[in-house]
Amino acid sequence: MRAEVIGVGTEILLGQIANSNAQWISDRLARIGIDVLHHQAVGDNEERIADAFRLALSRAEVVVATGGLGPTQDDITRQAIARALGVPLVRHPEIEGFLREKFAGIGRRMPESNLIQADVPEGARYILPDRGTAPGLACPAGEGRMLYAVPGVPAEMREMMDGTILPELELVAGPAAIASRIVRCTGIAESAVAELLDDLFHGSTNPTLAYLASSGEVKVRITAKGASRAEADALIEPLAAEVARRLGDHVFTTADEELEQAVGRLLRATGRTVACAESLTGGGLATRLTAAPGASDYFLGSAVCYTAEAKAAVLGVRRETIEEHGPVSEACAREMAAGARRLFGADVAVALTGVAGPDPHGDAPPGQVWLALEAEGAGHARGFRAPGDRDQVRRWAEQAALDLLRRHLDGKLLPE
Amino acid sequence: MRAEVIGVGTEILLGQIANSNAQWISDRLARIGIDVLHHQAVGDNEERIADAFRLALSRAEVVVATGGLGPTQDDITRQAIARALGVPLVRHPEIEGFLREKFAGIGRRMPESNLIQADVPEGARYILPDRGTAPGLACPAGEGRMLYAVPGVPAEMREMMDGTILPELELVAGPAAIASRIVRCTGIAESAVAELLDDLFHGSTNPTLAYLASSGEVKVRITAKGASRAEADALIEPLAAEVARRLGDHVFTTADEELEQAVGRLLRATGRTVACAESLTGGGLATRLTAAPGASDYFLGSAVCYTAEAKAAVLGVRRETIEEHGPVSEACAREMAAGARRLFGADVAVALTGVAGPDPHGDAPPGQVWLALEAEGAGHARGFRAPGDRDQVRRWAEQAALDLLRRHLDGKLLPE
Repeated sequence: MRAEVIGVGTEILLGQIANSNAQWISDRLARIGIDVLHHQAVGDNEERIADAFRLALSRAEVVVATGGLGPTQDDITRQAIARALGVPLVRHPEIEGFLREKFAGIGRRMPESNLIQADVPEGARYILPDRGTAPGLACPAGEGRMLYAVPGVPAEMREMMDGTILPELELVAGPAAIASRIVRCTGIAESAVAELLDDLFHGSTNPTLAYLASSGEVKVRITAKGASRAEADALIEPLAAEVARRLGDHVFTTADEELEQAVGRLLRATGRTVACAESLTGGGLATRLTAAPGASDYFLGSAVCYTAEAKAAVLGVRRETIEEHGPVSEACAREMAAGARRLFGADVAVALTGVAGPDPHGDAPPGQVWLALEAEGAGHARGFRAPGDRDQVRRWAEQAALDLLRRHLDGKLLPE
Repeated sequence: MRAEVIGVGTEILLGQIANSNAQWISDRLARIGIDVLHHQAVGDNEERIADAFRLALSRAEVVVATGGLGPTQDDITRQAIARALGVPLVRHPEIEGFLREKFAGIGRRMPESNLIQADVPEGARYILPDRGTAPGLACPAGEGRMLYAVPGVPAEMREMMDGTILPELELVAGPAAIASRIVRCTGIAESAVAELLDDLFHGSTNPTLAYLASSGEVKVRITAKGASRAEADALIEPLAAEVARRLGDHVFTTADEELEQAVGRLLRATGRTVACAESLTGGGLATRLTAAPGASDYFLGSAVCYTAEAKAAVLGVRRETIEEHGPVSEACAREMAAGARRLFGADVAVALTGVAGPDPHGDAPPGQVWLALEAEGAGHARGFRAPGDRDQVRRWAEQAALDLLRRHLDGKLLPE
């Protein structure tokens, strides 16, 4: 069964709001195995809305439209449905009674203009709302096709989708589900991932593979369709395992978690505490390590030292080190890590120093990063040049530091 | 001039990501007076993408597509453009050279599969990226119509829109412009802002007023349409001034800058240096203060101290203070600020301590925040209870600390 989601509202086309309803509805339809092949968004213009409905009904069995069901003159989804389906609007006294009661319940007089919400395309069912005043519509559109219209206010939309439309569609669509698993990895380029998985990509139709890259991370998404969630999961399992096997140590999770969450999980599991020393990331590494509730179980603190003086005074980096090697150097990163470990009394410490850019710092070009880790009997350092702008360089540096920490905690770092 | 925005990517149709690019692009097109009449989103299927392009080109003069320009096999926007326009793809040696240099620059081997990014539909121009490796495309589509394709990664998309496509469209679209000014304020509720501006809101049609609230901030957007940018700006000017006058000290900018940028500007202007001490924000305050290039002119460092031991050892908070008042207290915040100022040798220091939640910390409920500022001859502290989840509480705390700093630097804080 194919579906299409249509957002109605000029505010979407002006960029004043994101069409977040389309994302939510698509996710819920995928979960019950209904393929969404198109989204559309269209403004408050009756003819264009009707055209969008006709186009959608020509290529999908189920169309879900959001928005344009309010009580004001620019709410014209009802008329557009009537036009697209070639039927008149019929006023329903039950809805009228419902609206009058709603207003009476909150002690307000109902403007007569509100009665347009009691208009329903001939042959359609309506869905009375708990929240708000806008009824939803379920309109048969010939050849077993259905056009649903729900309010644009997210809470009102979700109420009708969860309460009426999704259960109805689940019955009609029968037992089928789309499931996804995401294998997330770091320290490897998207194109290198694609090379390693090339035959799997071309050899798989159900499940399918897809790639998504961001600064310092590549996601591999494995998606399968089955007669049930369990069947879809069973289809995914062997491919996900093979993908993870080929990507090896680069994989930090096959669960839906961020790199910092994977690191937090490892810290908790190994009962170790962590501290940081940061320069170019300005606290970003600590912010990510403390994003999850309960981070105080393993995170002790971070010394954000932007200046050479602070690196010396707070972290005990030797002045000769900075004079000889500069603040963006392996030697400085190592002393920062050692200093942070001592200062906070942590089991493990990671340090980051570098040039976020856009300007170079002394001899060090923008994007140059040095990171170091220090723990009982273990020390590691590496340097690299991160691509991109200031934000991206900072993100790359954080990813590399979290990854070094992950590999250390996982016992995957070879001794230097 | 009419435009259409097309998001390419199965992840959009599966509801795994929001099509936020469509919102951003629509907003920018509106600002230069270009009407967006439709959005579409379509998955990674060459025929359906080509159909979407054909439909868009039949009803808009400008089509902007995002996504599907990466180096992997599921990136097929290039092929879909070639199919829709009926032209072959041509490999460009200049792009090939550019790609090889990009990879060499970061010391990585380029997989040969990356070369598909050097393919350009015949007759089209390409836009070389600063960020990432995916070139954008500008494809003449007959009868003066243009089909632009840019990467789906937001930063890469924005770079090409801002740097090439929007300036080009502005020239072609000629003088008609929608302009906006945003007055940003903090320390005041959205409903209080709306009350202060009620008559302006109802009395204005061009320009119009709109409100947008987020954690610890309210934006008032003033939008006008004119025959030119200058005309639209002239319509905005008196209303923006009146809005700013009524909101008074709560306004931190009428330029398009973040609160941390306004603070950075004041620090630079007054030649003062700043340091922080952070607990619940975990480095978030420092991250924001260092987000702007050149932050090293005024930012010295931040001591992120998550534990009582670290607050004592690093910042010199007295153990009695913590035992008597707890770590989430005015007394602790004041000693943290004093400690950070001493540790980093800063002119001004701000400290944050509190409970991000979801669990309480001792007697302190989730959302409880204490902040303090210390400078030569000045000390301030305040406590409040922030609403929302962990992220929102952290954001509120950062906003309050930045605002305290702003008011201090601006000379608007009364002595205690």
